[in-house]
Amino acid sequence: MTDKVRLASVGLGRWARVLARGAGRGDVIDLVSCFSRTEEKRSAFQEEYGIPRAASTYEELLADDEIEGVLVTTPNDTHRGVIEQALEAGKAVYTDKPIANTMEDATAIARAVKASGNVFAVGHSARRLSGARVMQRWLAEGKLGEVSIAEANFSNERGLELTPDNWRWYKSKSPGGPLIQLGVHHADNLQALLGPVKKVNCTTKRLYTDAEIPDATISVLEFEAGMLAYLGCGWASPGVYTLNLLGTKANLFYDLDFTHWDESHLADKYSSLKSQLHGQSERETVDLPATDMFCEQLEEFALAIRGEAKVEVGADEAVRALAVIYAALESDERDGAAVEVAEIIEQAGGIG
Amino acid sequence: MTDKVRLASVGLGRWARVLARGAGRGDVIDLVSCFSRTEEKRSAFQEEYGIPRAASTYEELLADDEIEGVLVTTPNDTHRGVIEQALEAGKAVYTDKPIANTMEDATAIARAVKASGNVFAVGHSARRLSGARVMQRWLAEGKLGEVSIAEANFSNERGLELTPDNWRWYKSKSPGGPLIQLGVHHADNLQALLGPVKKVNCTTKRLYTDAEIPDATISVLEFEAGMLAYLGCGWASPGVYTLNLLGTKANLFYDLDFTHWDESHLADKYSSLKSQLHGQSERETVDLPATDMFCEQLEEFALAIRGEAKVEVGADEAVRALAVIYAALESDERDGAAVEVAEIIEQAGGIG
Repeated sequence: MTDKVRLASVGLGRWARVLARGAGRGDVIDLVSCFSRTEEKRSAFQEEYGIPRAASTYEELLADDEIEGVLVTTPNDTHRGVIEQALEAGKAVYTDKPIANTMEDATAIARAVKASGNVFAVGHSARRLSGARVMQRWLAEGKLGEVSIAEANFSNERGLELTPDNWRWYKSKSPGGPLIQLGVHHADNLQALLGPVKKVNCTTKRLYTDAEIPDATISVLEFEAGMLAYLGCGWASPGVYTLNLLGTKANLFYDLDFTHWDESHLADKYSSLKSQLHGQSERETVDLPATDMFCEQLEEFALAIRGEAKVEVGADEAVRALAVIYAALESDERDGAAVEVAEIIEQAGGIG
Repeated sequence: MTDKVRLASVGLGRWARVLARGAGRGDVIDLVSCFSRTEEKRSAFQEEYGIPRAASTYEELLADDEIEGVLVTTPNDTHRGVIEQALEAGKAVYTDKPIANTMEDATAIARAVKASGNVFAVGHSARRLSGARVMQRWLAEGKLGEVSIAEANFSNERGLELTPDNWRWYKSKSPGGPLIQLGVHHADNLQALLGPVKKVNCTTKRLYTDAEIPDATISVLEFEAGMLAYLGCGWASPGVYTLNLLGTKANLFYDLDFTHWDESHLADKYSSLKSQLHGQSERETVDLPATDMFCEQLEEFALAIRGEAKVEVGADEAVRALAVIYAALESDERDGAAVEVAEIIEQAGGIG
């Protein structure tokens, strides 16, 4: 590509680096600028990834006509302001998941995106993992038959390590703890595979963490298509990332070694997908073609700016993933009784 | 053993055969008689397992002074009558799980057992599988640390094959379908590992079966000790039997190939237990010493009659396992809101 798509990184922490490396593995994106409030962070980031310039204010970055889109990796509770400003400045926006910290912010972003007409993408990358893609293919080809139960777990030890200087410590900034931080990935994965979730039951417990948030959560998702899913998210155990589908014709069991999540071009190598066909008790290994979720989603975003691709996960999908989490949190308040996802979206003003 | 414990089989279907073979693999039990209402069934069973005599009525069998105990494998909804008669006749009783079809029957049996002082055992054999035993050991030795989330699934394709001539077709005889038939195993396994369940949330769906019962159920168990468990039970997929524990120091993942369940001396060979220690992403295979759950539980029961062993799963444990299932069914009626297990036991008259 001779005329690369010119993007800028906003919020220069660990995740901005993961994305910069992801973009660097492809040949579509040119990171031309970056912004963080701290000058040292800016220069370190510039040096590390060979970014030609940095803006000293966000307004300065948004006024830069060369920049076609921004990659937002600021904390969840700042997404709305950062995104709305960028949209107003006519920039395309890619933001990390979750789309926002609250349903109010999430639906406001969705409405602002629609009003602007700008390209907008949310980093629900996990649905691009080879295991999820092969599952999607098996479903589409009818090889699973009809799914009755799905099982998903995304857990790690973070709750045992949290200290008050981390924003994830606080209930207000990270409601539900592992549920919003990790669970939102599977909320998107499951909806990508099985369609919209209708209602959610949830129980959370704060057991071994010193932080304000729960470290054990179990949610039950009922889909509009009828099937049920278990979603387990904990912050008090060694890392787990599993996704299983039980169908009338076959079961599929996916297991990812999360250690290599950040290096998404390696993630599939450390994953396994096993199938168990009807009438069989043995499980067979299913081939996982190599993918690179971070690189692919960023290139899709960049090409969409030029009208050469379509964004797979936009505001609507991201709002629906977050709404599953908020329905879960609301259910937890109601002793685990079911909460409708549509209600949660409506209460927050809808997505227009 | 020169003086074997003399037992009789009551209800001579498939499960009586599994148990007869289990007893036959040991050297403690002598099956001296049997009873079923159908004469052909009696003579076929006698011939198959070399049983010296058969009773033509249940009363005749119970009047046989040589018989020290009975092995009950009649349908769940007949357990109470069959068991109470045996207790009154002074026999020790072993019954297949669940202890009964309703909480009223279950608690009545528990009270009758106490009043009689007779030896009584319930076939919650699954907790004797090597994987469950090793998990128990890891817990006791502190190798798992503190458990936050447990995951259990027991599912198979039975709902897709049911016809109206099978009692499992009917809601009244098999309430909850896979939940009561399969789930009660894990309700016992989980309580054996993690202590009593405090409350249960549950959602069930009838999706692909023609029968009256649901074929997809997900329950969430909250234990008195605080941790949460997922219990998935379906009747619309190839067979699954999994049991996982997520702890602060390690995770354990157990997977049983259910094909060999009936031949319990082989079950461990077709199982796998994997551990994942803190700070590791790899899973390592844990050795599973050979067990034989059906033989072991029957010999324990037989030796208990002679005062040479203690029954591990008696009426109280079995009532508590069934109460988890009935709490789940009640929760399903309440839109998934939590139901206390203690309430379910109390409402049924308590266990005395």
